Amino acid sequence: MLAILRLGHRIGRDKRVTTHVALTARAFGADKIFLSSKDAGLVRSVRSVVARFGGDFEIEDGVDWKKLVRAWQGTVVHLTMYGLPIGEAVPNIPKGGVLVVVGAEKVPPEIYEMADFNVAVGNQPHSEVAAVAVFLDRLLGGEGVRRVVKGRLTIIPSERGKTVVDSGEYASSRR
Amino acid sequence: MLAILRLGHRIGRDKRVTTHVALTARAFGADKIFLSSKDAGLVRSVRSVVARFGGDFEIEDGVDWKKLVRAWQGTVVHLTMYGLPIGEAVPNIPKGGVLVVVGAEKVPPEIYEMADFNVAVGNQPHSEVAAVAVFLDRLLGGEGVRRVVKGRLTIIPSERGKTVVDSGEYASSRR
Repeated sequence: MLAILRLGHRIGRDKRVTTHVALTARAFGADKIFLSSKDAGLVRSVRSVVARFGGDFEIEDGVDWKKLVRAWQGTVVHLTMYGLPIGEAVPNIPKGGVLVVVGAEKVPPEIYEMADFNVAVGNQPHSEVAAVAVFLDRLLGGEGVRRVVKGRLTIIPSERGKTVVDSGEYASSRR
Repeated sequence: MLAILRLGHRIGRDKRVTTHVALTARAFGADKIFLSSKDAGLVRSVRSVVARFGGDFEIEDGVDWKKLVRAWQGTVVHLTMYGLPIGEAVPNIPKGGVLVVVGAEKVPPEIYEMADFNVAVGNQPHSEVAAVAVFLDRLLGGEGVRRVVKGRLTIIPSERGKTVVDSGEYASSRR
């Protein structure tokens, strides 16, 4: 299990950024995202991408994050610009059973102690979306984006333009 | 020059995601971001990060994107989930003089023709922030986040907690 825990998501304000975190987690090879807050609209929109594009990525909201982190069978990695350089940290992190924790603007200070690793994807301010993407890309050695995910919609790589195959396996509500 | 062109930014709605794109561009080694729209607030907030954390990353808004792309001395790379796999494309892209184009929800169809390369960071929907991060990380072989950028604020990598050195070279408006 490779999962993401998103802390501090604020309904409304963070909807788009958290959606980007969730879709990035899915596209780069994670199995699941946990949200510490409740957001039914966000859950719906992520599930709708999974329904159209395939795979079995899961999303669960309203999670008691402390309980999740304490009970986690594996390694807890907190991504923070204050942590140790990703280049040095990644070789020490096992690939199985990883929970990747990312916050919104502020995180509860306990997470620095609870995590097995505090990892910086660069020691500069940028984005939790970027941090998740590059961390997963490096952890899995690029395997996340190389995988072929079978779904109703499949994009065929093209030099120019867009090629999408719609297998029509499931009825789309837009037809 | 390694630059990003952000197309289709909508003031208000896209402020946070475009800020993430800009800060990600800076943190992963780009020199500049161009915005095809005007957004003075966004420009100010990105410049304030540069003023505090250092480097000479630039932001320019209200750019005529077609003119910029046509006049670009170098390679134009459009990041899109419909493009060719990043693993195959990157070895063919020269490291100097790259303009990386990313859209918001929809991009003008001409960009597929105008770009030298249409590159997919995975053929799944995710995030322009993730796409910029992983593209730059792979193009520069991780050099972007390894660089030390000198600024008033410097983060010292830590196993636990936060260590920030404030050189106080410039007066902060918050004091």
